[in-house]
Amino acid sequence: MIYLDNAATTKPDRECLEAAQQFLTENYFNPSALYAEGYNVQLSLREAGKNILSCVADSERFGIIFTSCGTEADNQAVFGGGRRGNVVTTLGEHSAVYSAVNELKQRGIEVRFAELNSDGSVNEESLLSLIDNKTSLVSVIHVNNETGAVNDISKLAAQVKAKNKLTLFHSDGVQAFGKIPFKLTKDIDMYSVSAHKIGGVKGCGALIKRKNLILAPYIYGGGQQNGLRSGTENVFAIKNFEFAVLKRYKNLKDNLEKVKNLHEILWNGLDKSLFSRISPDTGSPYILCVGADGLRGETILHEVDDLGLIIGTGSACASNDKKRFSRTILACGITESLADGILRLSFSPENSQKEVEEAAKILNKVVENRKQVMS
Amino acid sequence: MIYLDNAATTKPDRECLEAAQQFLTENYFNPSALYAEGYNVQLSLREAGKNILSCVADSERFGIIFTSCGTEADNQAVFGGGRRGNVVTTLGEHSAVYSAVNELKQRGIEVRFAELNSDGSVNEESLLSLIDNKTSLVSVIHVNNETGAVNDISKLAAQVKAKNKLTLFHSDGVQAFGKIPFKLTKDIDMYSVSAHKIGGVKGCGALIKRKNLILAPYIYGGGQQNGLRSGTENVFAIKNFEFAVLKRYKNLKDNLEKVKNLHEILWNGLDKSLFSRISPDTGSPYILCVGADGLRGETILHEVDDLGLIIGTGSACASNDKKRFSRTILACGITESLADGILRLSFSPENSQKEVEEAAKILNKVVENRKQVMS
Repeated sequence: MIYLDNAATTKPDRECLEAAQQFLTENYFNPSALYAEGYNVQLSLREAGKNILSCVADSERFGIIFTSCGTEADNQAVFGGGRRGNVVTTLGEHSAVYSAVNELKQRGIEVRFAELNSDGSVNEESLLSLIDNKTSLVSVIHVNNETGAVNDISKLAAQVKAKNKLTLFHSDGVQAFGKIPFKLTKDIDMYSVSAHKIGGVKGCGALIKRKNLILAPYIYGGGQQNGLRSGTENVFAIKNFEFAVLKRYKNLKDNLEKVKNLHEILWNGLDKSLFSRISPDTGSPYILCVGADGLRGETILHEVDDLGLIIGTGSACASNDKKRFSRTILACGITESLADGILRLSFSPENSQKEVEEAAKILNKVVENRKQVMS
Repeated sequence: MIYLDNAATTKPDRECLEAAQQFLTENYFNPSALYAEGYNVQLSLREAGKNILSCVADSERFGIIFTSCGTEADNQAVFGGGRRGNVVTTLGEHSAVYSAVNELKQRGIEVRFAELNSDGSVNEESLLSLIDNKTSLVSVIHVNNETGAVNDISKLAAQVKAKNKLTLFHSDGVQAFGKIPFKLTKDIDMYSVSAHKIGGVKGCGALIKRKNLILAPYIYGGGQQNGLRSGTENVFAIKNFEFAVLKRYKNLKDNLEKVKNLHEILWNGLDKSLFSRISPDTGSPYILCVGADGLRGETILHEVDDLGLIIGTGSACASNDKKRFSRTILACGITESLADGILRLSFSPENSQKEVEEAAKILNKVVENRKQVMS
């Protein structure tokens, strides 16, 4: 089986699973417990926070709130940051932000959506034009989860602050974190990350936030995590996340080179008379979004699955809304006919050259057959 | 080491860990993915929901929403159910409900607290007197997490509905589920449960709800779980939860007998000149709450920890608020001097008779020494 849907979820890294295993067995104590065994678990959590932060941020300036997933982190940022006036975001957000701002709209907050460029990145001019003195929050995805387009969030955050220094800037970094080199700059107030996209397990994410930003909790209770996220911490998943992050950042450049190579081999192997490229050349190499004009992506997905190749058709999270076309892809200005045939091929450093060569062959064969059947 | 803080968290059951392990290894697919491998994981999740539900509810009438913890389930119930008028709850709630209703108060909802009886159960008369035609939600903990007192929530729910049939009834069942025999009745609209209190892992809970109850989501995003809880499901933890639940319910009566026996042996072994009993005789046997008048519970906790015995002083989740006295214990009408010396001894079916006999000896010795030092 060739797995090229790593933007949906990755296979948990075996080494990191083993390293965290002790928190499912002998070190199972409640980190809020007062006895030494509980306190030691609490110290392990703090170490995890420190180590994860150190990979992308100045830990003097930023803190971390562990959440149950990237979606919860996005929700805390949106509902915590977008409390008044208007909220500005983009048409290319993951549904974790998109659905949350739509809920804000229901609650009487004005929500403004910036337009996208044809590759899925946000149109900067459009975004900046929407910000005024009543904008409480701007949320811009770092790496688009469907096309892989990278938004220059450091530059955008600085531009946003120049227009309104009180506006908070949040970014969903789920498809960037552990994949592309990046450090949080002073203008970024909040940044969401997730474990299971980089070899960690499902059930763990985090919201990295400026330390001196006062943010409301989203889940209320026993006051864990300095009151910012109640509920007994998922110690195993958090420690596993720490190990996955450290492993990814240790090999960040090598992984990037490797994945760039896989991305190129796959793209070069695809028959250009069958596939058009949606992803920009300058995007994250971890995602290759292509379209097979006139075909249905879902049909291709099932046919290649039967041949041992697993791919996506866009965001796995969007499969639940049963809409035929991806909102993001349409916002790129892509025709419905092409939008129907969108495929997302996404990589992990675990993929091999042989796998992507084989994947290209399978995709060419299936799409060619299908076109012949239809003609 | 003797572990008697099972109400804070339990050691994950090895058998259930092993049974769920495949969802961390070969079956790692995103349950929202469209290919067969993803769909099979989705089916496994549905099976988990069905099996868990079957232990406490008529699955024709009730559905289940998986959450990241009991606290999140409580938050969804409180914020989803308490949207208008007033909310009635008790002074004996876990902080997951208590902090959530206090946040509701900040948002302009009136919150009314029913008084407790001396064992920590809710005073029924007090509770019913607070309900009027504007009460949108009543939330009553099933088994008090500090004293083990059992509230007759079926009876209370029926009484609440008789006073106002539009009022929603929620119960935090975290310390009851998998421990005491109980079935959800038609008047109970929502019921929160947690995995890590019954041999499952941290990071997983659920809100069981009446199927025809329209409830707002609490976490918005990709629309997982019929839109009621977005975010990629924590498949490993959910399947592990299923296995832990099935194991607990298979052995429910035997476990109850065993734990009753452990509870009695421990209580009988304690020197009554040193310890007074807070827990009612009719409470859940899984919790034995005692007080050592004039001593500090935290000091005893550390001293017995040094001797290899792990106990609690009340809710582990309450340790974060740094308050000296437990809110629940004071609401039982217990003096501050006794409230200071509260100890919570909580059992699992894994504990042995030998362990609790030894625990009684250690507690007697430590408290006696301390009293001598102080006299």
